Amino acid sequence: MKAYVVRGGFGLDHVVQVDRPIPEPGPGQALVRLKALSLNSRDIGVIEGFYNPERTEGLIPVSDGVGEIVALGEGAARFKLGDRVCGIFTQSWIDGEPTPANWTSTLGSPLNGLLAEYAMLPEEGLVRVPDHLSDAEAATLPCAAVTAWHAVVEEGQVRAGDTVVVQGTGGVSMFALQFAKLQGAQVIVTSGSGEKLERALAMGADHGILYTEKADWENAVLAYTQGRGADHIVDVGGAATLNRSVAALRVGGRISIVGLLSGAAVEDFAIVPAILKKARLQAINVGSRAMFESMNRAIGHNGLRPAIDSVFPFDEAVEALRRLKTGSYFGKICITL
Amino acid sequence: MKAYVVRGGFGLDHVVQVDRPIPEPGPGQALVRLKALSLNSRDIGVIEGFYNPERTEGLIPVSDGVGEIVALGEGAARFKLGDRVCGIFTQSWIDGEPTPANWTSTLGSPLNGLLAEYAMLPEEGLVRVPDHLSDAEAATLPCAAVTAWHAVVEEGQVRAGDTVVVQGTGGVSMFALQFAKLQGAQVIVTSGSGEKLERALAMGADHGILYTEKADWENAVLAYTQGRGADHIVDVGGAATLNRSVAALRVGGRISIVGLLSGAAVEDFAIVPAILKKARLQAINVGSRAMFESMNRAIGHNGLRPAIDSVFPFDEAVEALRRLKTGSYFGKICITL
Amino acid sequence: MKAYVVRGGFGLDHVVQVDRPIPEPGPGQALVRLKALSLNSRDIGVIEGFYNPERTEGLIPVSDGVGEIVALGEGAARFKLGDRVCGIFTQSWIDGEPTPANWTSTLGSPLNGLLAEYAMLPEEGLVRVPDHLSDAEAATLPCAAVTAWHAVVEEGQVRAGDTVVVQGTGGVSMFALQFAKLQGAQVIVTSGSGEKLERALAMGADHGILYTEKADWENAVLAYTQGRGADHIVDVGGAATLNRSVAALRVGGRISIVGLLSGAAVEDFAIVPAILKKARLQAINVGSRAMFESMNRAIGHNGLRPAIDSVFPFDEAVEALRRLKTGSYFGKICITL
Amino acid sequence: MKAYVVRGGFGLDHVVQVDRPIPEPGPGQALVRLKALSLNSRDIGVIEGFYNPERTEGLIPVSDGVGEIVALGEGAARFKLGDRVCGIFTQSWIDGEPTPANWTSTLGSPLNGLLAEYAMLPEEGLVRVPDHLSDAEAATLPCAAVTAWHAVVEEGQVRAGDTVVVQGTGGVSMFALQFAKLQGAQVIVTSGSGEKLERALAMGADHGILYTEKADWENAVLAYTQGRGADHIVDVGGAATLNRSVAALRVGGRISIVGLLSGAAVEDFAIVPAILKKARLQAINVGSRAMFESMNRAIGHNGLRPAIDSVFPFDEAVEALRRLKTGSYFGKICITL
Repeated sequence: MKAYVVRGGFGLDHVVQVDRPIPEPGPGQALVRLKALSLNSRDIGVIEGFYNPERTEGLIPVSDGVGEIVALGEGAARFKLGDRVCGIFTQSWIDGEPTPANWTSTLGSPLNGLLAEYAMLPEEGLVRVPDHLSDAEAATLPCAAVTAWHAVVEEGQVRAGDTVVVQGTGGVSMFALQFAKLQGAQVIVTSGSGEKLERALAMGADHGILYTEKADWENAVLAYTQGRGADHIVDVGGAATLNRSVAALRVGGRISIVGLLSGAAVEDFAIVPAILKKARLQAINVGSRAMFESMNRAIGHNGLRPAIDSVFPFDEAVEALRRLKTGSYFGKICITL
Repeated sequence: MKAYVVRGGFGLDHVVQVDRPIPEPGPGQALVRLKALSLNSRDIGVIEGFYNPERTEGLIPVSDGVGEIVALGEGAARFKLGDRVCGIFTQSWIDGEPTPANWTSTLGSPLNGLLAEYAMLPEEGLVRVPDHLSDAEAATLPCAAVTAWHAVVEEGQVRAGDTVVVQGTGGVSMFALQFAKLQGAQVIVTSGSGEKLERALAMGADHGILYTEKADWENAVLAYTQGRGADHIVDVGGAATLNRSVAALRVGGRISIVGLLSGAAVEDFAIVPAILKKARLQAINVGSRAMFESMNRAIGHNGLRPAIDSVFPFDEAVEALRRLKTGSYFGKICITL
Repeated sequence: MKAYVVRGGFGLDHVVQVDRPIPEPGPGQALVRLKALSLNSRDIGVIEGFYNPERTEGLIPVSDGVGEIVALGEGAARFKLGDRVCGIFTQSWIDGEPTPANWTSTLGSPLNGLLAEYAMLPEEGLVRVPDHLSDAEAATLPCAAVTAWHAVVEEGQVRAGDTVVVQGTGGVSMFALQFAKLQGAQVIVTSGSGEKLERALAMGADHGILYTEKADWENAVLAYTQGRGADHIVDVGGAATLNRSVAALRVGGRISIVGLLSGAAVEDFAIVPAILKKARLQAINVGSRAMFESMNRAIGHNGLRPAIDSVFPFDEAVEALRRLKTGSYFGKICITL
Repeated sequence: MKAYVVRGGFGLDHVVQVDRPIPEPGPGQALVRLKALSLNSRDIGVIEGFYNPERTEGLIPVSDGVGEIVALGEGAARFKLGDRVCGIFTQSWIDGEPTPANWTSTLGSPLNGLLAEYAMLPEEGLVRVPDHLSDAEAATLPCAAVTAWHAVVEEGQVRAGDTVVVQGTGGVSMFALQFAKLQGAQVIVTSGSGEKLERALAMGADHGILYTEKADWENAVLAYTQGRGADHIVDVGGAATLNRSVAALRVGGRISIVGLLSGAAVEDFAIVPAILKKARLQAINVGSRAMFESMNRAIGHNGLRPAIDSVFPFDEAVEALRRLKTGSYFGKICITL
């Protein structure tokens, strides 16, 4: 089978296509013929050596994908041949609270990812995907959608009438927008691009804030909520956004910390405003299989369609990763086989 | 002012129009000129002497209504003249868990209700209503809508992809349908009338079950959920429905007990099925002011419109009550002034 | 190895000792040499044919036991030889909400139980037990203690200053007493025996109610709580106790339904009192592995010791079951090997 | 009556005793003759002009105190003459989530505090205190104890077997230690003084860490929990402690942010460790009346006694404040009248 690996160093120039034998499923395992993949900024981080660099040589990158089950090992009974499934990002996190051991079972590092024609996964690490989704759409779910679901629905318990702020128009943010709308909330999107704000509004956002013109977007949020503040903020920026997120929050509101696009350390995180807001900050690290399954019921029942930025053929996977690295996209970048 | 009171006995024949002085607001009170009322089956119970019979002689019945603030007592500062407000059913239940003392502060018994041209209420016992609602629509909120919100959203924490069952097409059930849809759920409605099921489907219900043809509606629910069962059931029937509700539930599901239309005592409530379903049964008694305010944000943001069965003029209030007593209506019966 | 099976009919007379080969562990399995067992009333129900009667012929009964790992199958890595472990009652319920499939994985029916010298279990179905417990004490944990923990701590979220009512002095009730005291609660115990009440008071109960003298024990609970009612009631009686439990509850309180000692159907379960109490009734069916592990940390840290009624040698297992069937015991009946 | 006010500038030198008329209770108000007070570091902040400086001239400082009701205004019915009560720190926060308006109702700034012989408060802003406490002990409850209760019990939902870390030996930390022990937890205390650690161990702490010798106290916490990390950390330090608190946490653990003793801005708050710990950071700002009442039941039932550092007579109130400002004390500094 064809597969990409990281070889001879770090960075996109070291992602090369190789030939590998198709694996045979052992007890409880399933062989999946991949049909589509989607990319996450973490994939770039892995390729550039920021996650487990000592294990990256020879690694198949890219955590998210969908495929068809083409062979089943002894005792594997959760699925049948032909089922269309996604791998779960954190393979061993089934339900409840995670454990440190779960963190060592993530696809695309330290475990091999899915940028290949076939992948072998334990049947416990797979979920069926909603029928109405195309392969590219289904491939977007494991990281971005589950993270947004975890933030907005599981942790945020967002409900009708709440106000939710999503930052930017990347994959997690667009899913957070969609899930918040599914739950009846008012959604405010921030972006540095007027054109992307238009697209977010077309997807159902109630208000857009162009932060290149309005750097103090927290005040715009307060204005849109008659001074009350947002009930929930999905913070993807980290360094540059966390203090502003606290300022934009209502008393008793919640922030889901899901990213660090503008840096991994918040300079001068201010405690007094957080106390005056009685703020809750909940860090989110993707989610469990049970969350994935709940989300799929919601997506299936409501016919939700993910935002796709662009689709590349498998042989242009490195180009897809380059587009991801520009940071300039709307929704998810996909690869089809 | 004109007002109705219960006089000289119990029952609809003893609801008579009288003349009463317009009250003057004391400290912290507001005088409300009523514009519309809505009826609940509890109002019949009060009039027939089933609630606090010793306090019913001379009582102004009917708990739910909307009006305009026309005078404010000393220190009353939450509202301004002209604000359109509803009275809260449980006047003293502001937030958090109720106390037994709260139960003695319910409108329409033991406190005077709103079937009058004016009512005097403490400003703490009022909430502003969404602008887009007509007076009759706004009058439906205090009992039926708050009960449904409490059941579906506060206690049920229903979320996108869940399956919710609502029984019948009365006021609470139609609000429960609407709130469950606002939260992205699949909704199944049961009814004894094919025509009412059609109307419920037109309001967004996903499936209707005609229990006159399918008495074992719990099996239809299991079929609609591929054997999984409903996540949440709003039980309004009590005696005749509770065991069936348990049977229709998924493992780990929840039942909100909000009514007793078919009787107040469940003969042979079966414990083993409840344990095998790990069922939660939560009794609901309307809700707090904080719930009412959250609900109003949801209604306002989403432009939700209550289901109105019929509207009567004030002078035909007894006719309106008679229609309520037939038990045959769809949504709420209202009275306008 | 020696083992008991149900053979040739139902009832204690059909529990016979047989010789069986010691099983060999397959992949992911562990062979456990049993050291002690404890009995639950469900074990009698199984032996008498009330659970899965079609699968009872030849079944090894008794769900709860502790033993030492003496062999491990391929890939089994959670434990090492010599570890002292209990089997989990619901073998496949690891964390989060249960599924219907979990219910088919319970020990002692439909799966073989532990009334034998050895048992083979998947390593995922085992938990380590606190060091300070004797074998007989450790054997009491899987059903009775996990049920009580689930009721009082996981579902009940009992906290310091709460009032908890436990009914009777059986295994679940005595664990519920102990866990409620660990969490700082006031505990009231009901019993039909003054001597057992004395023993419960010696274990830390704050008050005892002799229901043979005071059938309306709900009024005694109200008196002990200055009219406020209990925050949480662990209802083990079912038919005869549920309405009284509602009456003894505070507004907003919770009842855990864990048993049906006085019958499986509540005649005339009264809905109005439940609504006026805003009661929550949560049915409990033992618990997950995650609950078992949390509980073990609590038991270990606090040096808690289970209440043991009596200990029988393995060869007198049928005598132990007969004592269980009398219904007259205090805490757990155990068997040691 | 004698009272202290801040006059002519900021700082302890501007706290002067004056004579003021005894107020008369209006409708719904109660006149309280103060019997004891306790000090919080916020009181120093107010006196030094860091809170609402424009309102500090002439303000009676000190938020926490206990006294006896000596007169009641019209309609005041929650208490009777002679009842011993504490003022609630956030006078208008009764139950549920707070609102921004609640923050303007805090005693000791912007509202007058209790450093006087009498105080007039709305009856809704008072709670009865446990009988077994001395006046000085009861005076310690409104800020420090309610904050600790909110952190450990309401938000933290600490339960038996959990591990809780408390930082230092000030008032909030010693209450957090006591409440965590009431709930059956293992408690680890950090301090810069070996003698204070000894006193904390004598109050029930399981382990003490002397951070002057072991600056990386997070590693000691990991060692005491066999690498698992703490379930809950009550962070009082802010700037210097927050990143270490994340490092000391278990996956899925919770941090209550209750103070900023080492500074109000965290330099370089690190997001990646928070995400890998799936950390929850909940800012806490004292608590509601409902929390205060729940806490009092817990204190009363369990006979808990607060840690008192020292007691000063009313005429030496400024000396008491000076001791507070040294930052070197164990538990609460009190003043009696």
